[in-house]
Amino acid sequence: MVVVMQERATGEQVERVIAQLVEMGFDIHRSTGALRTVIGAVGRTSADPRLIELLDGVHEVLRITEPYKLASRTFKPENTVITVGDVRIGGDEVIVMAGPCSAESAEQVEAAAAAVKRAGAKVLRGGAYKPRSSPYSFQGLGEEGLQLLRGAADRHNLKLISEVMESGQISTIERYADILQVGARNMQNYTLLRDLGKSRLPVMLKRGISATIEEWLLSAEYILAGGNMNVMLCERGIRTFESYTRNTLDISAIPVVQHLSHLPIIVDPSHGTGRRDKVASMARAAVAAGADGLIIEVHCDPDHAMSDGAQSMYPAQFDRVMAELRIIAPAIGRSICLEPVARRGWSR
Amino acid sequence: MVVVMQERATGEQVERVIAQLVEMGFDIHRSTGALRTVIGAVGRTSADPRLIELLDGVHEVLRITEPYKLASRTFKPENTVITVGDVRIGGDEVIVMAGPCSAESAEQVEAAAAAVKRAGAKVLRGGAYKPRSSPYSFQGLGEEGLQLLRGAADRHNLKLISEVMESGQISTIERYADILQVGARNMQNYTLLRDLGKSRLPVMLKRGISATIEEWLLSAEYILAGGNMNVMLCERGIRTFESYTRNTLDISAIPVVQHLSHLPIIVDPSHGTGRRDKVASMARAAVAAGADGLIIEVHCDPDHAMSDGAQSMYPAQFDRVMAELRIIAPAIGRSICLEPVARRGWSR
Amino acid sequence: MVVVMQERATGEQVERVIAQLVEMGFDIHRSTGALRTVIGAVGRTSADPRLIELLDGVHEVLRITEPYKLASRTFKPENTVITVGDVRIGGDEVIVMAGPCSAESAEQVEAAAAAVKRAGAKVLRGGAYKPRSSPYSFQGLGEEGLQLLRGAADRHNLKLISEVMESGQISTIERYADILQVGARNMQNYTLLRDLGKSRLPVMLKRGISATIEEWLLSAEYILAGGNMNVMLCERGIRTFESYTRNTLDISAIPVVQHLSHLPIIVDPSHGTGRRDKVASMARAAVAAGADGLIIEVHCDPDHAMSDGAQSMYPAQFDRVMAELRIIAPAIGRSICLEPVARRGWSR
Amino acid sequence: MVVVMQERATGEQVERVIAQLVEMGFDIHRSTGALRTVIGAVGRTSADPRLIELLDGVHEVLRITEPYKLASRTFKPENTVITVGDVRIGGDEVIVMAGPCSAESAEQVEAAAAAVKRAGAKVLRGGAYKPRSSPYSFQGLGEEGLQLLRGAADRHNLKLISEVMESGQISTIERYADILQVGARNMQNYTLLRDLGKSRLPVMLKRGISATIEEWLLSAEYILAGGNMNVMLCERGIRTFESYTRNTLDISAIPVVQHLSHLPIIVDPSHGTGRRDKVASMARAAVAAGADGLIIEVHCDPDHAMSDGAQSMYPAQFDRVMAELRIIAPAIGRSICLEPVARRGWSR
Repeated sequence: MVVVMQERATGEQVERVIAQLVEMGFDIHRSTGALRTVIGAVGRTSADPRLIELLDGVHEVLRITEPYKLASRTFKPENTVITVGDVRIGGDEVIVMAGPCSAESAEQVEAAAAAVKRAGAKVLRGGAYKPRSSPYSFQGLGEEGLQLLRGAADRHNLKLISEVMESGQISTIERYADILQVGARNMQNYTLLRDLGKSRLPVMLKRGISATIEEWLLSAEYILAGGNMNVMLCERGIRTFESYTRNTLDISAIPVVQHLSHLPIIVDPSHGTGRRDKVASMARAAVAAGADGLIIEVHCDPDHAMSDGAQSMYPAQFDRVMAELRIIAPAIGRSICLEPVARRGWSR
Repeated sequence: MVVVMQERATGEQVERVIAQLVEMGFDIHRSTGALRTVIGAVGRTSADPRLIELLDGVHEVLRITEPYKLASRTFKPENTVITVGDVRIGGDEVIVMAGPCSAESAEQVEAAAAAVKRAGAKVLRGGAYKPRSSPYSFQGLGEEGLQLLRGAADRHNLKLISEVMESGQISTIERYADILQVGARNMQNYTLLRDLGKSRLPVMLKRGISATIEEWLLSAEYILAGGNMNVMLCERGIRTFESYTRNTLDISAIPVVQHLSHLPIIVDPSHGTGRRDKVASMARAAVAAGADGLIIEVHCDPDHAMSDGAQSMYPAQFDRVMAELRIIAPAIGRSICLEPVARRGWSR
Repeated sequence: MVVVMQERATGEQVERVIAQLVEMGFDIHRSTGALRTVIGAVGRTSADPRLIELLDGVHEVLRITEPYKLASRTFKPENTVITVGDVRIGGDEVIVMAGPCSAESAEQVEAAAAAVKRAGAKVLRGGAYKPRSSPYSFQGLGEEGLQLLRGAADRHNLKLISEVMESGQISTIERYADILQVGARNMQNYTLLRDLGKSRLPVMLKRGISATIEEWLLSAEYILAGGNMNVMLCERGIRTFESYTRNTLDISAIPVVQHLSHLPIIVDPSHGTGRRDKVASMARAAVAAGADGLIIEVHCDPDHAMSDGAQSMYPAQFDRVMAELRIIAPAIGRSICLEPVARRGWSR
Repeated sequence: MVVVMQERATGEQVERVIAQLVEMGFDIHRSTGALRTVIGAVGRTSADPRLIELLDGVHEVLRITEPYKLASRTFKPENTVITVGDVRIGGDEVIVMAGPCSAESAEQVEAAAAAVKRAGAKVLRGGAYKPRSSPYSFQGLGEEGLQLLRGAADRHNLKLISEVMESGQISTIERYADILQVGARNMQNYTLLRDLGKSRLPVMLKRGISATIEEWLLSAEYILAGGNMNVMLCERGIRTFESYTRNTLDISAIPVVQHLSHLPIIVDPSHGTGRRDKVASMARAAVAAGADGLIIEVHCDPDHAMSDGAQSMYPAQFDRVMAELRIIAPAIGRSICLEPVARRGWSR
C-alpha cells in the first residue's frame, strides 16, 4: 500500500498515519518531497486501505494489487497445462468443448455428441442441473442426465464437462464428468469453491457477469488454495450498458489474463452473445486473440431445445466455424484438431 | 411477446412466424399496417423470444416484461407490511437496523447493541458467517457469534438480522435470528432461495451488484413461490464505471421498486458507499426518497474491526444521522423512532 | 506516480525504470523492501504512466490522482459561492432552477415562469438551442426563444440559465442569460470549454453520461484555467446496465464532489430519471444528501411539450415537492426559499 | 410503438390511451386477449413513448427501434463500399490505416509513413488537432502538421485520414486529408455532424465511449441526412466496470453493426486497449470477427511520443501483426494487402 499525503498535510498527520501502519504490521518507507510526503507500506499483512484513507491529511491510498498468489504469474511463470486423459488444455492445441445446453433425452444427447465429435470437438458439454433465473423454468434432468452424457461421451471418445451448482452435487457429478464447471452466478459462492478445492477433477471457473479480472482470479485462488491446481478460467461476457447483445464478450480479457496468470483461458461465445448468428464471429475472434479453448452450445434441433436454443448452433454451422478456426489458429502458432473424425469418416 | 416484422417481410415469412408462435402455445393477434406487420402473442406460456428473433423477416421481438407474478403490484396492489414482534417493516415508521459487520467478541457486540438501541434502532444487525472475497480473510465466529448477538439483542429489546450463506446454515441461524439476510453474491443462488421459501422467518434479499431490478424481483419470486411471503428487498449499490465510490448506490431504485412491487425496500448505505464519511449523506437521501428502512454498520472501535471497519460509523456519527433522519421523515409523512431510549435515558 | 516493481525484478530493471523517470523530469525516491522495490516519482511534470508500465520488471504503476488544480480543495479549501445578483449559489440556501425544457411560445414561457416563481424557484431554466439525438426532431427557437425567456424572467424577478451548444452561440446567449449551461454531451468539447473560460458569466457544467468524477473536474479545470472562476457542477445521471430508469442519478457524487472540490454542485432529477413520477423522490434525495441546488423541468402542459414532456412536472407537482424540500433542508442546516411569493401572493 | 395495458386496466383507460395515440398521429391496432389488451401504434410520426407510459392503466410501452433510416440495412440491403482513389473500404480487402497519434515533426512523420507502407498499410493516420482531457497537455501542430502528413502520404502513395474537432477546421483539413475522422467525444456534436454532411470527403465516425449501437447509427444518420453517403463507423472501446484495460473493445459490435447497417466498420485496437502489448491480439480478433478495416497507432520512437506513446506499436510489432492478419483474413474469405511493398522492396 502506498499512502499519498495531502500537499498541506502536517508533520503530526504524517506521524499518525505511520503509527497506524506500523500497528497494522507494515514496514514503512517515507519519502518527503517538495510538494508532499509519500509513504510506502510493505509486508505480508493485508489491511483494508480504506482505514488509512479516512485519516486526516491523507490525499489517497494506492493499493498494490495482486491479492491472489497461487493464481499469479509471479508465483508460477510458466503456463499451466491441464491433462484430461489424452486432452491437454493450455498447450499448443486449442481445445473445443461443445454440446447441448442441457441433457434432455438419450436421442438428443447422442445426436449432439456425434455431431460435435465429427467436427473436431474433444470435450462434450452438457448440463444436468440448471440454474434458471425463473422458478417456473425447466431445471434439468439431474443424475439421469449425467448418465446420458457419460454414455454418449464414451461412445464417441469425448471427455465430459458438466456444471456443479452446489456442494451437495459434487460427489454425484464427479462419478460421471471429467471436468467440473462453475457457472458465472456461483463465481463468488465461496462454500462451493472451497469444496471444489478438494476435488480430484479439474475445474472450469466462469467469470461472473460483473466480476473484475482481479475478483475472478481471487475466486480461482480459493480453489487453488484448497489444493486443486487444475483450474481453467472461462470468459463468458460481462454486463455493460449495451443491450443489443445479451452480454459484452470481453475478448481483451484473454491477453490480460495470460499476462497476469498461468492458468488456461477458455471462451464461451454462446453465452457471451446469446444469439446463434453471432457465435461464429466471436469464436473466431477468441481464437485469434489467443484463447486456449472454446466452449460452444450445439443442438441438433435448437428450435425445440428446453433451454437456450437461441444461442445453440446447428451442427452444420458448427462444422463451418471449426473449418474457419483451423485456418486461424496457425496465425498464432497453434492448431485445432488437425485431423477431425469427420474428414476421415467422409473418406471411407 | 410482440413480433415486429421487417418492412419488406414477405407473406410467407409472416406465416412462418405465426406457425412457430402457435406451436409454442400462444394466441395470436395480427396487425397489418401500410409499413409493416406486427404480431401480438399472448398466453400463459413463456418462451424464449430469441427463437423468434432469429427467423427470417423479423425486425425485432419486444418482450412484455414482468416474468415475476407474486412479487408484482399487479398481483397484490397494497403494500406488504412485515411484522416482527412489535416492529412493522413497510408501515409508516422507517425502521433502522444497525450494528457491527461481524460479531467479534461479547464486549464488542454488547457495546454496539447498546449504542444503536440508544440512538433509536429497532433491529440489531451482525454477521456470524462472512462471505469474503479472499480465502485468507477472517471468516466469522459461526454459531458462537449468533449466541453473542442474540444475547445482546435480548438485553436491549432489539430484533436480530443475520446473514445466511448456504442452505446448511438455515436451521442454525433460525434458532437465533428474527430475520434472515441473503447477501448480494447469493442473490441468484437458487438452491438457497428455494430453501428460504420454506423458512418461517422473514427474509431480506440484497440486490446483486450487477442485477437489474427485474432480476432482483425474480429472485424474490423464488422465495415467495416457496410459500414465504415475508420478503423485503435491500438496495446496496450497483457496479458502474465510477470507481471513486466502492459501488454506486442506486437511490432511484427506491421509487421504481415501490412502483413495480408491494414488497418493502430497505437501503444499505454502508456497503453502498464503502466509506464511513459518505454513509450519513446516503442514509438521508434514502429516507428522503422513500425507503422503508435502513441497515447501517456501527462499531464502537471501527479502526480495529475484523471486517469492513472503514464503512462502520462511530456511535456518535450514528446518533447524529438518526437525529437528522427524524427531521426528514415527516417530509414524506413518515416517522423514525420518535422517542428514542437515548433521550429517555438521558433524562433519568 | 508510484512504480511497484515485480517481486523478481532485477537490479538492472530497477535502474532502467529510474533512468526513464529521471529523463521525464521526476524526482525519485526508492524504497527497497524484503519483497520488492517501490519507486516514488514526484514533480510538476505530468507523464503517461503507461510508458513506465510497459517496461520490464514493472508490476504496476499507481497514479497519484488530481490532475486538476484550480478545481481542487487542496488549491482552495473554502467553498466557492457564486453570486448572480441577489442569488447566491453554494451558500446556505439551496437554490432551485426550474422551467420548461425548451422555449416554445410566449404563452408557454410566461405560464411556466409564473408557476415556478410562485413555488419558490430563483432561476428560470429554458433552452433555445436544443441538442437532439435525431436529426429529424425539433431543434429549438434560437434567439427568439432567448427573448421570450428573458422577458418572462424579468417580469417575475427570476435569473435565467440557458444552454450553449457551441462557441458561436456564446455571445448571443450572453446577451440574454445570467448563467450559461454546458450539456452532458459537450462536457469534453474542449473548444467550447476554453471559450467559456473567457465569458463574464457563471457556467453550469453537466457531467457527461459516462464521465468519471475526475474527468468532470478536469473539464471544469478547462473553464477555470481560462480565467472564469464561477463554475458550478451539475450531476444528471450516468449510464449503467440498469435500463428501467433512463440514467442512474449518482446521488453519492454529491458528497464526493464536495470532498474533492470547492465548486457548488447542482442536481438535475428530471434528466436523471427521465420520468415525471420519479422526479420528486430524487429531488428530495439530492437535497437530503447535501446538494447546493436543483434544476427541474416544469411545464404547464407537458403532454404537448415539444421536447422531454415526459420528464416535466406539472406545476402542482412542483409546488408539492418544494413544500417537502422546505422540511428537509433544515436537517442539514440549510434553507429553501423560506417565504415563497406564492404564499404572499395568495394572502393578498 | 406497442402499448401493453395492465391486466386490470379498465375499458376507459384503454380508450384514453387510444385517443392520445390518435392525437399523436398514429394508426391503431387493438388486440384484446383474455389477460390484457395490447395496442399497436404505427405511422411515420415519432413520439416520445414515455408520454404514453405515464398514462393510467399502462403496463409498459415497447418501442419499435430503428429511428435511423438511411443508415439501416432495411433502407439499403447491399454493403456500402467507399472508394478513396484505388483504396476500397468495405470490399473484399481488409484496409489497414496506421501511423502516429499526432504529427510531431517532419522526421517522425516520414519515418512512420515509410514503416507502415512497407508493412502493407493503405492509409496514413495522424492528428494535427488533438482533443486532450487536460488543458495542460500538447494540443497538436495544427495546419503545419497537416502539411507534414500530406507530404509523407504522397511520397509513399498512401491515403490520409485526420481528425476534425470542430466545424471551423473542416475546410482546412479537407485541403490535406482524404478521409475526415470524428473522435469519440464528438460523436454527438450535432453541429459538427451536420456540417460534415456537406463535405465531399468520406467520414470515419468513432463510437462514443458510452454510446449504444443505436445512438452511434443515429449519429451516422446526421451525416447521411446531410447528403454525404460515405460514412464508415469505427469501434474503439466502451466504458465498463473493468479498469484493467483503458476501455473494453466491443468486438461483438462488428457482427451486430453488419447486421443492422450497410456501412463499413473499422476497429481501433490502439485506443480500444490503451496498451501496446494488447494491440496485436485485438487486431487479430477484429479481423477474425469480420471487421472491414483497422486503424492502428505506429510510432518509430513511442517512448518519446508527445501523445499516446504507450499505445503506439513499434514498426517491428506492426510488421508482425500484419503477417498474422494475412493468415487470418482468408478464413472469412477476405485478404489483407497480399503483396506488401516490404516484400517487393526486400527482393530488390
